[in-house]
Amino acid sequence: MIVTLLTDFGTADGYVGEMKGVIAAQSAAVSMIDISHEVAAHDVDCARLALARYWRRFPEGVVHLVVVDPGVGSERACLAVESMGRFLVGPDNGVLSPALLAPGSRAVRLEPPAGASATFHGRDVFAPAAAALALGTPLDALGAPVVSPVVRRTPEPRRLADGGIAGEVITVDRFGNAITNLMTTRAGGRLEVAGRVVPFLRTYADVPVGGALGLIGSSGLVEIAVREGSAARDLGLGRGAAVVLRREPSPG
Amino acid sequence: MIVTLLTDFGTADGYVGEMKGVIAAQSAAVSMIDISHEVAAHDVDCARLALARYWRRFPEGVVHLVVVDPGVGSERACLAVESMGRFLVGPDNGVLSPALLAPGSRAVRLEPPAGASATFHGRDVFAPAAAALALGTPLDALGAPVVSPVVRRTPEPRRLADGGIAGEVITVDRFGNAITNLMTTRAGGRLEVAGRVVPFLRTYADVPVGGALGLIGSSGLVEIAVREGSAARDLGLGRGAAVVLRREPSPG
Amino acid sequence: MIVTLLTDFGTADGYVGEMKGVIAAQSAAVSMIDISHEVAAHDVDCARLALARYWRRFPEGVVHLVVVDPGVGSERACLAVESMGRFLVGPDNGVLSPALLAPGSRAVRLEPPAGASATFHGRDVFAPAAAALALGTPLDALGAPVVSPVVRRTPEPRRLADGGIAGEVITVDRFGNAITNLMTTRAGGRLEVAGRVVPFLRTYADVPVGGALGLIGSSGLVEIAVREGSAARDLGLGRGAAVVLRREPSPG
Repeated sequence: MIVTLLTDFGTADGYVGEMKGVIAAQSAAVSMIDISHEVAAHDVDCARLALARYWRRFPEGVVHLVVVDPGVGSERACLAVESMGRFLVGPDNGVLSPALLAPGSRAVRLEPPAGASATFHGRDVFAPAAAALALGTPLDALGAPVVSPVVRRTPEPRRLADGGIAGEVITVDRFGNAITNLMTTRAGGRLEVAGRVVPFLRTYADVPVGGALGLIGSSGLVEIAVREGSAARDLGLGRGAAVVLRREPSPG
Repeated sequence: MIVTLLTDFGTADGYVGEMKGVIAAQSAAVSMIDISHEVAAHDVDCARLALARYWRRFPEGVVHLVVVDPGVGSERACLAVESMGRFLVGPDNGVLSPALLAPGSRAVRLEPPAGASATFHGRDVFAPAAAALALGTPLDALGAPVVSPVVRRTPEPRRLADGGIAGEVITVDRFGNAITNLMTTRAGGRLEVAGRVVPFLRTYADVPVGGALGLIGSSGLVEIAVREGSAARDLGLGRGAAVVLRREPSPG
Repeated sequence: MIVTLLTDFGTADGYVGEMKGVIAAQSAAVSMIDISHEVAAHDVDCARLALARYWRRFPEGVVHLVVVDPGVGSERACLAVESMGRFLVGPDNGVLSPALLAPGSRAVRLEPPAGASATFHGRDVFAPAAAALALGTPLDALGAPVVSPVVRRTPEPRRLADGGIAGEVITVDRFGNAITNLMTTRAGGRLEVAGRVVPFLRTYADVPVGGALGLIGSSGLVEIAVREGSAARDLGLGRGAAVVLRREPSPG
């Protein structure tokens, strides 16, 4: 019985401690695994992209608790989801999209209990639901079906008239790697980004320390990186920056 | 057998790793749950307020290890506490006040063993005591009673001659919410803070994005917040800032 | 069955989540304990020094997963190590030196499986090996012996002609304590550092708040500290700063 936790709460204020206490009080047998509490405040997209990485790595039966919830207290719904044998709970703001988009996913609406805080559904709605799911409560016992939960998608790349493929940076990781929406299984060619052209190679070691390159990251997405440096800082890249992949040999 | 950990050590230096190793070496069956290691260095009040949030959320029998200890190596005592069926260990500097102030609490003084480091009681005194308590050692077996442990209290609000209630900001959380010492179960009226007047409403969604408001936080304390912003930054609020609650209709 | 995790990945990007999912998928019975994911990016020495603190505190049978790996994708080997009854996995860049330098240690080379990412051996090589070791797979079943793994050593102090002992700052901790390579069991005398002379005392409480001193840290190494302050900031100390220990009474 594993419950994983992903929030933008930080840890020092004790909010995560409260959620863990609520879960432990429902069952001491639940094993809680921290994913992160350091998501930037209110950054639903960052949490969504992180969730996309790990949710299916865990075995069936896991419960993923995801609370990045700028709309807490508004009319946005609270969700519990079953998808590919995993369970998820979190707000209906698109953060659970990776699981909602998988075939056969089902979502139900959690109703805040009487006396729930208007500002802390993580403690009063999501943590109790996560513990209940971990203890074997069926999804349908937690609420009524939600037909059209909010889904957020990574933008699709598009093919240019001149043969290039145009994408964009969707997130920047801790190392300053700029991760794009371009997916491929084969390196080769070059990438135009921020007024520069960088080679599309296999790995960091294919350029000298400090050199910029494109490579296929561990999720299959093209990344712009600087060996032992930061592409975000050194090339001035951030979310939304345009990237063009060209497979033909460089004319230069 | 749960031991929770709250420190101001950060994690990168390996100090928390040493404490966890000491606990694991005493019993592999202890389940360690991180609360935070990101309390600002030496910020006893921040740790005390975090502890107040979570210590009773965990089930009876839990051991809360709290090491924010600027006085390590001085004559301050090391404490183990039993309160409301929970156990706590930490320095005698007020950080354990939420548990010490509960009715029926008892404290004993832990004596550093021969060879204990003068600078790391977390590893050499507190972690072994936490493991012993988790394994069922009775509190009284760990040391002699302490009659008057150090207690720190949140300042009390006071009623003004004109009917307002004067309080102050006691902490600022990761989202920039300024949490005050004003406790109530009913929103309504307005709050004067930092030369401004903000409405006292139910939740963030009651104002537009970027709007300031007061609301009742998840501990029952009044908070000053900015929807999807930071009250601390946008209104210039910090610990100690004066806040006045007025229930009568605004004259304006 | 304990697996500890030390990385420089941060947590928000979901990489650590992926590693934890891989381990959980191999066995739900493995207990994962975070050491840190906040090591500065690519700081092999910081991770090595942290590992030195905790690796032997854990009981025999523990598996320490250490992924600070600026050379991922290059020809550097992936290692699994058995030392003093503990197991370790990580890159062959010296980060595992504390265990490799212990008598009787053995190392084997892990081969990346077909399809392993060139940039994320933590997920595709190290985490599976850690789970296998935790489940009882013998070290030799994981790969061929490595005769001369990379070892990094803390520089040795040297004795000066005038009787002083010259060392240097090897790391700075979260509190701004500057930890040197001078090891001793006895305080006394004075330390010359950054153009200043500070007394070598027992603990922080031996100077007033804000006062600088040397003391014996919890690993037996001499540290330069400022009581309730930061020696790094207040004295301008960083890694590599020269420190001289003089035992004779000050001439002044």
